[in-house]
Amino acid sequence: MTTNRQLRLQRRPTGLLAPGDLQLAETPLPELKDGEALAKVKYLSIDPTMRVWMAVDSYLPAVAIGEVMRAGGLAEVIESRHAHLKKGDKIFGLTGLQEYAIIEAQSKIPYQKIPSIPFVSETAFLGVLGMTGLTAYFGMMEIGKPKKGETLVVSAAAGATGSVAGQIGKIHGCRVVGIAGTDEKCAWLTDELGFDAAINYKHADWKEKLAAATPNGVDIDYENVGGEIMAEVLNRMNLHGRVVLCGLISGYTKETSGPANLGLLIVKRLKVEGFLVLDYGSRFTEAAMELGKWKMMGKLKDRQTVVEGLEKAPDAINMLFTGGNIGKLIVKV
Amino acid sequence: MTTNRQLRLQRRPTGLLAPGDLQLAETPLPELKDGEALAKVKYLSIDPTMRVWMAVDSYLPAVAIGEVMRAGGLAEVIESRHAHLKKGDKIFGLTGLQEYAIIEAQSKIPYQKIPSIPFVSETAFLGVLGMTGLTAYFGMMEIGKPKKGETLVVSAAAGATGSVAGQIGKIHGCRVVGIAGTDEKCAWLTDELGFDAAINYKHADWKEKLAAATPNGVDIDYENVGGEIMAEVLNRMNLHGRVVLCGLISGYTKETSGPANLGLLIVKRLKVEGFLVLDYGSRFTEAAMELGKWKMMGKLKDRQTVVEGLEKAPDAINMLFTGGNIGKLIVKV
Repeated sequence: MTTNRQLRLQRRPTGLLAPGDLQLAETPLPELKDGEALAKVKYLSIDPTMRVWMAVDSYLPAVAIGEVMRAGGLAEVIESRHAHLKKGDKIFGLTGLQEYAIIEAQSKIPYQKIPSIPFVSETAFLGVLGMTGLTAYFGMMEIGKPKKGETLVVSAAAGATGSVAGQIGKIHGCRVVGIAGTDEKCAWLTDELGFDAAINYKHADWKEKLAAATPNGVDIDYENVGGEIMAEVLNRMNLHGRVVLCGLISGYTKETSGPANLGLLIVKRLKVEGFLVLDYGSRFTEAAMELGKWKMMGKLKDRQTVVEGLEKAPDAINMLFTGGNIGKLIVKV
Repeated sequence: MTTNRQLRLQRRPTGLLAPGDLQLAETPLPELKDGEALAKVKYLSIDPTMRVWMAVDSYLPAVAIGEVMRAGGLAEVIESRHAHLKKGDKIFGLTGLQEYAIIEAQSKIPYQKIPSIPFVSETAFLGVLGMTGLTAYFGMMEIGKPKKGETLVVSAAAGATGSVAGQIGKIHGCRVVGIAGTDEKCAWLTDELGFDAAINYKHADWKEKLAAATPNGVDIDYENVGGEIMAEVLNRMNLHGRVVLCGLISGYTKETSGPANLGLLIVKRLKVEGFLVLDYGSRFTEAAMELGKWKMMGKLKDRQTVVEGLEKAPDAINMLFTGGNIGKLIVKV
């Protein structure tokens, strides 16, 4: 009998995760029933939204106390009595923070089979070809609607979603300026991804640098952060600009998240639109094909920060809020 | 030689207007030149946006210190050397807070001639058929897009704009709930204007009452206030709802104006769109005709709070922020 190691939610965090908010548990794997498949989780996707799932009911119910923490994971089927899955199949789904996941016939874990594509690593399906890439795709294409010659600013630009959003802007002929929290991240954005400029908001003169990098103002704000950073981008926006409201990570670990200068929305006739990638489920295939094409053409680059070991997942979640990762943050189980 | 009394901006206010922020001045009227018309200001439109004009550059430059305070006014031509204006013509334009305005050929004061319509008072062109009515019209029709059976919530609902926005919602078959600051205002909204419910936000249980009045949630928020009131309406909103961002009056006299729970925009996939009526200038005639038709059909009711005397204009401006007026606030010069 195999033992499954799991991280279960023991306590709703306040601010950053504290030791014990997620508790490691060991539990024997039950025998596989007809219609089920057993999958070994290889990689876990670590995303800001997990902090929301730990705290409150939102677009999904909050994870219940005592439950395995919800998380996206890439897993390989190692035993199957399931009609549509066979040993060796690779899948992506909400496996949870655990070593093994059981996929049922009437699955509570919706999953996607992952194809094998030359020169594309399987972990790309957690990032650039996965939920974060798809999020950037639909946010940019459906709300941002980038046009040649426009200026796009992306906050948390070196993150999994921001880095793809910015590159989609470049593909559509925009001037793209990223905001990030280290010089290393900024160098990656300009030197590797082709951003026109990148601003480290931890430098005292970042507002002047943002102004200098956006001489024609800002037409699209791909917003991941909120608070003071969003406020300063609003200051730079042109009339009738669009704010793609993807995230407000500055507010996920504290009470407030809005910028103080919301009145600019009226003065500048701005549109702010929130969205969730889950609403575009019927178009995931189309979007993944488009992203995959750009990736094979070399127009879309990605990077991963890999943390080793299931037990390190709580630290990895905190890295998202302290700026520790570049690109997609993954836990290798 | 006639003397013109004017209110000039002497000091930018902090918070509410203090005595001396606007200073009464008397100045002789210059002789009329070729191409000019002299108009006697009869009524002045008192609007929240004036507080913005006193403080900062926005969609119009801030009023300069020493200048006559900018304001919309209804005036009658008393002497004319102007090609298109004759004695007795009534006009609406940015006359400023003064007794007389000079209209030039190449006018710095854009104006509209006011037609004489049976059963419609001339002051209607300051309110329900003027800028505040037009603001409600374009906000509702272009951004709110009301559909039969939807629920609309209007904040500052007993104000000049809110009262029209709510009635436009009723005309389009919405359930309409108003938020206002006195029981008298609430009674006017339900008993006279036909709102389905009205909530006095100064009562301790107003949030429970708002919930009870919106059993199917809220589809459209016509937002005039911001801050805590907007935050509570966001709490009640349905997925994919629209926020017509018309004003944030709670923030005009202090620093912050945004609601603290902006993250709901993502969770609920909401769209918030700011707008200014000035952008729809080419459609003012069309909109005024539509509003006029509703008014003549008895579907659109209006009310005015009239303050007597130019020198009372500063007190009138403050009434907007302390909730003193019902319907359109006007100064009779």
